[in-house]
Amino acid sequence: MQDFSFYNPTRIEFGPGKIAKIDKLVPKDAKVLILLGGESAKKNGTLDEVLAALGERDSQVFSGIEPNPSYETMMQAVAVVKQHKIDFLLAVGGGSVIDGTKFVAAAALYPDDAWQILVTGGKHIKQALPFGTVLTLPATGSEMNSGSVITNKSLQAKLPFGSSLLYPQFSILDPVKTYSLPQKQIANGVVDAFVHVMEQYLTYADDAPVQDRFAEGLLQTLIEIGPKALAEPENYQVRASLMWTATLALNGLIGAGVPQDWSTHMLGHELTAIHGLDHAQTLAIVLPEMLRQRKASKMTKLVQFAERVWHIEHGTDDEKAEAAIEKMRAFFESVGVATRLSDYQLGAEHIEPLIESLIKHNMVALGEHGDVTPDLCRSILQASL
Amino acid sequence: MQDFSFYNPTRIEFGPGKIAKIDKLVPKDAKVLILLGGESAKKNGTLDEVLAALGERDSQVFSGIEPNPSYETMMQAVAVVKQHKIDFLLAVGGGSVIDGTKFVAAAALYPDDAWQILVTGGKHIKQALPFGTVLTLPATGSEMNSGSVITNKSLQAKLPFGSSLLYPQFSILDPVKTYSLPQKQIANGVVDAFVHVMEQYLTYADDAPVQDRFAEGLLQTLIEIGPKALAEPENYQVRASLMWTATLALNGLIGAGVPQDWSTHMLGHELTAIHGLDHAQTLAIVLPEMLRQRKASKMTKLVQFAERVWHIEHGTDDEKAEAAIEKMRAFFESVGVATRLSDYQLGAEHIEPLIESLIKHNMVALGEHGDVTPDLCRSILQASL
Repeated sequence: MQDFSFYNPTRIEFGPGKIAKIDKLVPKDAKVLILLGGESAKKNGTLDEVLAALGERDSQVFSGIEPNPSYETMMQAVAVVKQHKIDFLLAVGGGSVIDGTKFVAAAALYPDDAWQILVTGGKHIKQALPFGTVLTLPATGSEMNSGSVITNKSLQAKLPFGSSLLYPQFSILDPVKTYSLPQKQIANGVVDAFVHVMEQYLTYADDAPVQDRFAEGLLQTLIEIGPKALAEPENYQVRASLMWTATLALNGLIGAGVPQDWSTHMLGHELTAIHGLDHAQTLAIVLPEMLRQRKASKMTKLVQFAERVWHIEHGTDDEKAEAAIEKMRAFFESVGVATRLSDYQLGAEHIEPLIESLIKHNMVALGEHGDVTPDLCRSILQASL
Repeated sequence: MQDFSFYNPTRIEFGPGKIAKIDKLVPKDAKVLILLGGESAKKNGTLDEVLAALGERDSQVFSGIEPNPSYETMMQAVAVVKQHKIDFLLAVGGGSVIDGTKFVAAAALYPDDAWQILVTGGKHIKQALPFGTVLTLPATGSEMNSGSVITNKSLQAKLPFGSSLLYPQFSILDPVKTYSLPQKQIANGVVDAFVHVMEQYLTYADDAPVQDRFAEGLLQTLIEIGPKALAEPENYQVRASLMWTATLALNGLIGAGVPQDWSTHMLGHELTAIHGLDHAQTLAIVLPEMLRQRKASKMTKLVQFAERVWHIEHGTDDEKAEAAIEKMRAFFESVGVATRLSDYQLGAEHIEPLIESLIKHNMVALGEHGDVTPDLCRSILQASL
């Protein structure tokens, strides 16, 4: 196990009806900006519940945050915050709305050009507005971590940032809120959570048995409940487990004290930035070949993954690793997330611009060993056609 | 899964040399009281490291907190805090020192008779002094939770209390600090952590696959590393895993959203209060028969425990449950913690006073179903002779 710091002060309120807790969790005299994605929170009554919980508080709504929240949109929200002297933010939505809210929380109080938050990864953030979240889409874990990813549309850049000042003060997790989600978003959420775990687990053996077993527990749970979450949209227990699994997949716990990879995410971000693929789609495309082409350095954990998660008992180490990768690919496909570039009408001619963009963003030494080069990424994309 | 609230703001600094972080974590102008158990922190240099990290801060030492910290001793510390206007506490030790420090943190600012904190379980605590911990003994999890247990020697009462104001602000976990511990304390720590997990896991099936797998991961890790932690006292990786496992066993995470038992603890507390047995010894005595005599209501989880933790694949449900209980007993014995009352020179004549004490403390409807009566506890103790 490696040395680590772990800190996560986000309060979780989990269960139906917990939106009412907002009244206790937001200061009585707060000036609140509620941030929304599309129209669903308005249509399905979630916004009304939130407004009822806020009661007499001075609050207004900013809506229209897109999937892969853009710098351009979020700067409009920053302007609203400054104009109306907002002092508390409330994100109502999935990871995109929450990520966007984190950017607003930091940018509203940032003394310099807010674009620098992204250029510097957030390391100069000295203060941020307090905020809470009402999660409606289990996937990203943003509801219980301090990271965010923002896309600059004009620059075709999707960049991560973070700060210990950007943990939500609270997050309301009500599994019932997921019943009305489109199947595609649930499928994406399953894949997103799965790959979040893999980025922190599938590296090299490092004497961290608890972290390994927690990660394997999350993966096994996703394999078990993923198909059910699609087939039975109103099965409360399944949706509850999916929601809590996705949160725990990226709240810092399973990554504390272990090496982390994240190269699949960085390469995937380029696919989203240039071609607009869903985040989970990019992960499903990249991860299988990312693991296959790095089998040598990841073999110990690949075999462990095969044996403990997929119960593959027979064969050589290489055969076990190959079988596990294919089972993972089949799992992604089984929940409806395709795993080949060609499934998204992308061909060999699209690869070079992705590699150029990766280089432009200085993503040239990725992975737990820093040995995932643009050349390797090219090879991975070629094998993912 | 049941509805839950989860909140745990304790910052963990894990690794060798992390004591130096105290300089950043304690306010520069704090008046600090360092709380210690016996002489070991002085002898092994830990106190010197802490004092060096505190630097110029106004600090003094209160030592002599006993295992099962007593109300009488801790009230002496409260007097020191009031006399010297202490505004930050620093516990350096194991669960007893940390539990005692939590009591001081609450009692120093309690407007009424501090004994009422224990009588009321802490529910009227409105403020508490801030405190941090330097953990030297992995066992109780007190370094990352808000609970405490204090013993009133004159009343022969060992009572729990807690408050969300009693999370440590930070805890320093340096596995090297455990190298010099007596074998008995490591053995007790392994059993203590194991039973903490069991109290939150071995109840009834409640659609909580992640919590179950996290609990099973901790149990499997303890089974794997327990004997090594004794045989190789300076194996850093083993001690690191033991330390982190014991913390995660009782930081609220695996118990969030699931039924909890705790009857073994409550009955065990009576054994400590009256006969002075180590906490872990009492748990090792009580738990096997507690599970056996409640097999009917716990059968589903007992079978799961047998299959997933002990890999018992054959037999009827009852045979699997029995085999798992006996394997658990053998595990406790294997690390040197005896599991029979007679091993501690206690006989049938000692049972009735324990039951009377349980009744006096109103522990008459224990367990996840509230059906663990004094009569059942008597039967359990009789079977544990």
